[in-house]
Amino acid sequence: MTLPEVSRSAGVVATPLALADAPRPVASAAPVARVAVIGASGYSGQEFVRLASGHPGLALAALVSREHAGRPAAQWIPGLDPRATRLPAAVMPEALDAMLVDARVDTLVACLPHGAWKALSAERTELALASRVVDLSSDFRDDASGYVYGFPEQLRDAIAAAKRVANPGCYATAAALALLPAAEAGWLDGPVMISALSGVSGAGRAAQLRTSYVELEGAASIYRAGTEHAHVPEIERVLRRAGAFVSVGFVPQLAPMSRGILLTANAPLSRPVRADDVHAFYARRYAQEPFVRVLDAGVWPTTRAVARSNRCDVAVTVLHGGRTLLVAAALDNLVKGAAGQAIQNLNLMLGRPESEGLTMNGSPW
Amino acid sequence: MTLPEVSRSAGVVATPLALADAPRPVASAAPVARVAVIGASGYSGQEFVRLASGHPGLALAALVSREHAGRPAAQWIPGLDPRATRLPAAVMPEALDAMLVDARVDTLVACLPHGAWKALSAERTELALASRVVDLSSDFRDDASGYVYGFPEQLRDAIAAAKRVANPGCYATAAALALLPAAEAGWLDGPVMISALSGVSGAGRAAQLRTSYVELEGAASIYRAGTEHAHVPEIERVLRRAGAFVSVGFVPQLAPMSRGILLTANAPLSRPVRADDVHAFYARRYAQEPFVRVLDAGVWPTTRAVARSNRCDVAVTVLHGGRTLLVAAALDNLVKGAAGQAIQNLNLMLGRPESEGLTMNGSPW
Amino acid sequence: MTLPEVSRSAGVVATPLALADAPRPVASAAPVARVAVIGASGYSGQEFVRLASGHPGLALAALVSREHAGRPAAQWIPGLDPRATRLPAAVMPEALDAMLVDARVDTLVACLPHGAWKALSAERTELALASRVVDLSSDFRDDASGYVYGFPEQLRDAIAAAKRVANPGCYATAAALALLPAAEAGWLDGPVMISALSGVSGAGRAAQLRTSYVELEGAASIYRAGTEHAHVPEIERVLRRAGAFVSVGFVPQLAPMSRGILLTANAPLSRPVRADDVHAFYARRYAQEPFVRVLDAGVWPTTRAVARSNRCDVAVTVLHGGRTLLVAAALDNLVKGAAGQAIQNLNLMLGRPESEGLTMNGSPW
Amino acid sequence: MTLPEVSRSAGVVATPLALADAPRPVASAAPVARVAVIGASGYSGQEFVRLASGHPGLALAALVSREHAGRPAAQWIPGLDPRATRLPAAVMPEALDAMLVDARVDTLVACLPHGAWKALSAERTELALASRVVDLSSDFRDDASGYVYGFPEQLRDAIAAAKRVANPGCYATAAALALLPAAEAGWLDGPVMISALSGVSGAGRAAQLRTSYVELEGAASIYRAGTEHAHVPEIERVLRRAGAFVSVGFVPQLAPMSRGILLTANAPLSRPVRADDVHAFYARRYAQEPFVRVLDAGVWPTTRAVARSNRCDVAVTVLHGGRTLLVAAALDNLVKGAAGQAIQNLNLMLGRPESEGLTMNGSPW
Repeated sequence: MTLPEVSRSAGVVATPLALADAPRPVASAAPVARVAVIGASGYSGQEFVRLASGHPGLALAALVSREHAGRPAAQWIPGLDPRATRLPAAVMPEALDAMLVDARVDTLVACLPHGAWKALSAERTELALASRVVDLSSDFRDDASGYVYGFPEQLRDAIAAAKRVANPGCYATAAALALLPAAEAGWLDGPVMISALSGVSGAGRAAQLRTSYVELEGAASIYRAGTEHAHVPEIERVLRRAGAFVSVGFVPQLAPMSRGILLTANAPLSRPVRADDVHAFYARRYAQEPFVRVLDAGVWPTTRAVARSNRCDVAVTVLHGGRTLLVAAALDNLVKGAAGQAIQNLNLMLGRPESEGLTMNGSPW
Repeated sequence: MTLPEVSRSAGVVATPLALADAPRPVASAAPVARVAVIGASGYSGQEFVRLASGHPGLALAALVSREHAGRPAAQWIPGLDPRATRLPAAVMPEALDAMLVDARVDTLVACLPHGAWKALSAERTELALASRVVDLSSDFRDDASGYVYGFPEQLRDAIAAAKRVANPGCYATAAALALLPAAEAGWLDGPVMISALSGVSGAGRAAQLRTSYVELEGAASIYRAGTEHAHVPEIERVLRRAGAFVSVGFVPQLAPMSRGILLTANAPLSRPVRADDVHAFYARRYAQEPFVRVLDAGVWPTTRAVARSNRCDVAVTVLHGGRTLLVAAALDNLVKGAAGQAIQNLNLMLGRPESEGLTMNGSPW
Repeated sequence: MTLPEVSRSAGVVATPLALADAPRPVASAAPVARVAVIGASGYSGQEFVRLASGHPGLALAALVSREHAGRPAAQWIPGLDPRATRLPAAVMPEALDAMLVDARVDTLVACLPHGAWKALSAERTELALASRVVDLSSDFRDDASGYVYGFPEQLRDAIAAAKRVANPGCYATAAALALLPAAEAGWLDGPVMISALSGVSGAGRAAQLRTSYVELEGAASIYRAGTEHAHVPEIERVLRRAGAFVSVGFVPQLAPMSRGILLTANAPLSRPVRADDVHAFYARRYAQEPFVRVLDAGVWPTTRAVARSNRCDVAVTVLHGGRTLLVAAALDNLVKGAAGQAIQNLNLMLGRPESEGLTMNGSPW
Repeated sequence: MTLPEVSRSAGVVATPLALADAPRPVASAAPVARVAVIGASGYSGQEFVRLASGHPGLALAALVSREHAGRPAAQWIPGLDPRATRLPAAVMPEALDAMLVDARVDTLVACLPHGAWKALSAERTELALASRVVDLSSDFRDDASGYVYGFPEQLRDAIAAAKRVANPGCYATAAALALLPAAEAGWLDGPVMISALSGVSGAGRAAQLRTSYVELEGAASIYRAGTEHAHVPEIERVLRRAGAFVSVGFVPQLAPMSRGILLTANAPLSRPVRADDVHAFYARRYAQEPFVRVLDAGVWPTTRAVARSNRCDVAVTVLHGGRTLLVAAALDNLVKGAAGQAIQNLNLMLGRPESEGLTMNGSPW
């Protein structure tokens, strides 16, 4: 595990007192990627565009959207002031071929519904010309896919060397960060049970009755609980890579909020552990991670604290005489759970500061 | 366990096709309680007033509120049309003494913050004149208190014979209904872990920063997770009464919604059980319960479906080769988790139909 | 204007102290309608089913839904407990012909998207056999349609004599109740400007991006402001019937809430009027109306106070030395703005108590 | 009116395609203010801290909070990662004296409840040492106060020359931007009626029942409508300065959303004007304003589009044959309505680029 850039780069801030991860000048020798965002009108696509716009290493060369092709970005990305916007108009996916051939684009970020990037990349072979691909869908998250799993806290060096990265899912990122230290420590023994709330943007932007306002205001629901949810194997692979061969049960829940994952996990421990020791181990494991914060003992996470940031908050303790691990995590599903993590991965792939263009500080309202 | 009245009383409905639990005439020979609601301006107090107003067996003889004493009900119970309201103005607690002495009041329903009813009833000895007391706080929920624990699905006959009833907490009601069949079946083996979301009304009506609108919109939080939460011993007592001596871990969460509890629990099973058998056992156990519904296999609860009803929805399955029980429950914290259950208990205490004045049907928006 | 039934029927309540409009026995000599609800799965259709289920004069004989035909009501009306439900399974519109012919159905309540009832009733001539029709869409709200406009506060006697009633829109109901007394008094002089918030259920239940949860949480929008909105001529007709020939400007707004209309209107007055006189006039005008309440001077409406009730709250004053009328109104768009008003109209058409099955009391959360 | 810096400074962005107002290097010759934020824990105080943290011209030298004195910023400003935070711990107001004397602080930004800054500055005379003061309360918004009214779109040059600035209220900013061109054009004739929605953060962060979650979810309310609201004279002063001596009626409304103002105004016009001409005039008037955008004809504002930005969206048309002006505006009450406008004013006072540290682009969710 290499030392993340956060503390070093923080040093350049000109103001004597400030949030250390505020925007700042960056040495311009680092490579700049010419990025095409495929599926730019969905929630994670839009979020990527917003985050990348302020990033000195990412030039937004193409925004791809079948639905909005030909329309200026400010007409279909809510909130943009057209006078302030230098973004290109949307193009069809077919337009990418020529842009890759003549190197106007060298990096693809796919923010498509599950299945669509696999289909598109199989069909249009010129897309293989891209120097870098980050796919935010679940299409290539299995180990046999040729994509590196884009989970920096576990696979930082592999990502830095990769040309193809499969960005983790939002649930899996939260679960993986909650359980990784315990898995690495060899503590997990027997099934892990996970209960997690997701904000509604996690269900995508296509209009559906189940994500309509009236159906959700003031109500929470469980859906597809069990072991069959697509995220279960993704979480099990993370744990297996860390040496823990345990099965996972998962209870996803939809809460009336636009953003955020709030997750709790419990598991029997292989031997009794003291709460202090578990906490200290977690704190040490994540001490150098810019985007993971282990909360003080007795403090529990809230999605509010991590909203609009790339940070994941983790809390951990043991119950029942040290025989049950109880761990919780909160993150923003559109940032650390999607677009922010994609940028973290691109930073690694480009050899730029890992935390560039990202914030550790949440904006709660 | 006696047969609940729901199916029988449903027969009287005049309309050929209707929701069976719609309001209907009731034989007037049954006793009518003269009720004082103490703490009528809080969320559960108001909810009790609304539900009791349409109940032919409950005459609202006094509304007690220090803050609003002397003011007509329509001025401090939001939504009431003063022209339609025959409720009395609020009185001070001190006024109850005379009302009990001359039998204008014979039943007390205490909807006070925790600790307040214990203090008030110790201080004002005339309150002991009441023929019936239902306390919605946690003050007398322990077995040594002389109060019967008002959980009809477990203690129906004792409640029917009681003069003092401690109404269960909202979290404990959801947890108890989720776990009762498994406990009775002797399946529970080892610690039970519970993760539960609560709507904000569960935190009471006193103004607090942590329940302010801006602090909660679009955000979910964990608070006081572990084994120390006041509800843990309450849940453990229910399970013990059913023969299961297991410890409980509890993760309460605050979700951005006014009403509702959504709870999941998992526990290791003493021996592998088939999902079908678990489901069938739960369905049989609750078949005669008017206010518990076991959802079809594969369907999971939502707070929306039980909103404003006295119903609790329960879903159950097993994971990990039948070795882990996974059960979920949803209810409305102000109804089945508070005021509705208080009415259910009063119905039993009065010898009236158990479901009188209550609805099994949720109103989702 | 005949005296509404509210005060009389309130007298029967058995409990000494209660909300006067709580459910109560009703003389059974009154006629019972056999109702088919067409479009029963939309928000107003569902609301009608819920309200009508407890109504002794309305037998729900058929629920019509193309989408859900053949499915039990509890599978597609959220919240219903199938054990408590005596509602019929959904049928196709085509099934109504035979039901009308053999008098299993004699009353049609159309809760369809605008345009659909006009098309359906033109196409299927057997539908003309119905003894009574209430259409909740805008299809027949113009005076030339042969339908009576179902605004009881203005057209009570005509409704009572009608066989076809066009139920007013939710915006128009709020605007009409806000302005009717001023129009009748001859005070309105010059254009009326209306600004109104609507809850999201007013946009219907079809899945649309613009009514998706994420698009609406924490945000309010103006849409189609001006004089072209479909509701403007509807409001102008109400005012004209009352003698006020003024034009109307309208600013509809979508607020992040499921239910409710909150409306303000201002207009120049033909001559200066004192605030006390305006208030007294409004109070007198609505004194006998069960479902309109004029708030005390200085109190302004909130949608919370009328939620889930059939009541409209109205506040009125004058500004600028008595030369500008300022009036506000709040109602529940699904009740007084749709299904509740439909029941009020059916009560009138059937000669039953006008307020039967309806509540004047709001349920704020 | 000087040309705002937005287009010029946008030119430095390194990326070929980007949001033009994204963070960027700034010439460091410009003066840097040493800022004390007084009342830093309220919503506008926190927002100021967040915005100022990334601002190269504002050094956060002191955060003043009686409640949190001595505590590190990350413990009381939600969302901050203590590892990323270089903010000072909170101090008591008394600590400012010494900091002003030895020039550790030279600029005061008061984010206190109304009345508190007036009292504090009268009591502690050392506060007069500050080179610059921006007060966000209503204490000094009248013309006789010696403070310049901080409304850049009207008083840019006076602000640039000022040492004391009274930051406008959120309602007044929206109203003023909606009406300023019409007032300057001499079109306004007769009373202006304003209806406005505010997000809940506008009511401050002190815990109150009326801003509690349950009281507000799914509900909108009118409060203190009329001509007496504190903002009415503030709006009338803006119009008078522009030559329009008209009275204003105001209907403030609380909507269930954390942020945002959505305002509509109507007024009789002194002579009929064509819609195209009104729109063209507004567009020209605001063409050089970085933070005001006139929407295309037929497009109406939404708070979503301006959330978390310093932009105000304005839409304008005429009704009733050109005799009624209808104008609407949306802004974020915590940014353009408070902290963002304070930074815009500080930029002017410091001679820095007016749009520095601020964004024209909204972040809708």
